[in-house]
Amino acid sequence: MYESSVKIRVRYSETDQMGYVYYGNYAAYYEVARVESLRNLGFAYKELEMQGVMMPVLENSTKFHRPARYDELLTIKVKIVSRPAVRIIFHYEIYNEENKLINTGETILAFVNMHSGRPCRPPQVMQDLFDPYFNG
Amino acid sequence: MYESSVKIRVRYSETDQMGYVYYGNYAAYYEVARVESLRNLGFAYKELEMQGVMMPVLENSTKFHRPARYDELLTIKVKIVSRPAVRIIFHYEIYNEENKLINTGETILAFVNMHSGRPCRPPQVMQDLFDPYFNG
Amino acid sequence: MYESSVKIRVRYSETDQMGYVYYGNYAAYYEVARVESLRNLGFAYKELEMQGVMMPVLENSTKFHRPARYDELLTIKVKIVSRPAVRIIFHYEIYNEENKLINTGETILAFVNMHSGRPCRPPQVMQDLFDPYFNG
Amino acid sequence: MYESSVKIRVRYSETDQMGYVYYGNYAAYYEVARVESLRNLGFAYKELEMQGVMMPVLENSTKFHRPARYDELLTIKVKIVSRPAVRIIFHYEIYNEENKLINTGETILAFVNMHSGRPCRPPQVMQDLFDPYFNG
Repeated sequence: MYESSVKIRVRYSETDQMGYVYYGNYAAYYEVARVESLRNLGFAYKELEMQGVMMPVLENSTKFHRPARYDELLTIKVKIVSRPAVRIIFHYEIYNEENKLINTGETILAFVNMHSGRPCRPPQVMQDLFDPYFNG
Repeated sequence: MYESSVKIRVRYSETDQMGYVYYGNYAAYYEVARVESLRNLGFAYKELEMQGVMMPVLENSTKFHRPARYDELLTIKVKIVSRPAVRIIFHYEIYNEENKLINTGETILAFVNMHSGRPCRPPQVMQDLFDPYFNG
Repeated sequence: MYESSVKIRVRYSETDQMGYVYYGNYAAYYEVARVESLRNLGFAYKELEMQGVMMPVLENSTKFHRPARYDELLTIKVKIVSRPAVRIIFHYEIYNEENKLINTGETILAFVNMHSGRPCRPPQVMQDLFDPYFNG
Repeated sequence: MYESSVKIRVRYSETDQMGYVYYGNYAAYYEVARVESLRNLGFAYKELEMQGVMMPVLENSTKFHRPARYDELLTIKVKIVSRPAVRIIFHYEIYNEENKLINTGETILAFVNMHSGRPCRPPQVMQDLFDPYFNG
């Protein structure tokens, strides 16, 4: 299993008139969490696209336990439980500044070769970086 | 069962560098679909908040079957299958201009009294409007 | 001079915790207004990009006279005062449902050849469509 | 004069199909820059709203010199040139990772008492924090 943790501060633009973070903005938080967790691993998502591989989202689901509010510094815990193959699954838990769980979610993405449009395996360099976390 | 249909044209701001609608923007499409389907029924969501009731989202899930592209006129079919009580569940199917299914999703929302912060039933006027669709 | 008028309904996602449309969302409204005003003229912006021409924004400015609120049906009046050449300037006036002026703005865009990255003139078909409005 | 500097990493959600940061997203960057520059000064914007003062935007303008791209770590230099009274003016310069100037802008905001809806002066604590930068 690979785990990582990312902090995001809520922007004013992300609130709505209920005074909470708009429910649609969590998907962007998840994406930042994915990208930063890969960067923590040593891999830049940007490089992936430069190598002709993209990662379209297949499924995304979210449970909203408590609202997030403006200016809160949220902590997103990201987990990858099973070894990434043609698909990769990210699990998220978001905690507020009082360390209360406010949001849980999950995203399934595919690796797709941009030129052929076909599913593919993660690049070897990425597989090598994941290797120590999914052995045995 | 209550069914309704809503059209949304993809904005440039909603695309990302993959050339598709960013996956996080479907939640806003769903929200427009909910609001317009209620308006088609005869109910303005705005009135609900003015009456002191809000509808926070509890759960949201999405499957991405095909990408949506800039300027496409999407058709969102919205269904409410079971009679709304303290919760209401919306199901969505999004079709592109070639009538291909590109996206399916589901949102569970609560009715909450803004003053007490407690779950509540939908306002009577809303229940009356739903009544013909959930009888028998 | 070419004038056109476009209607946009404020989405919940576009409000912020002040209860107004977030100031950053007017740029997306302007873009919808530009695209729809060109469509009213007979030209699809999408076609432009397919022909290898893009229109990056050079300058944008906005004055916020009154707030816009959730669910309001806004009317955006769009004007092009001078004949588009390598640049095109759009002027906007946004009115709320009570016909009060809430927002004025202006955007300057360039026509750029995607392949060379160089400024270019609008495609001939677009120039022909503009012609009747800028003669004499 | 008060100056501050803020870093923002471009999110995937902020790009558009041209492959650049969507022009409408700079307003949110400016807002983050304002909030963080005030935090660097010792003042939380959140506190302002809690004290019943809000800061609606009156005017905003932007010049786009070069595109910003996905994952770039942008540096926003924020300046307040004249002592804030019932209005405050922020100037921005955004630099990319190669230290090239990509964007300049300016925002004029008012201080407004939420209860009366009338313009007001900044809270005393904020005036005191600004004092050393605008003396003489």
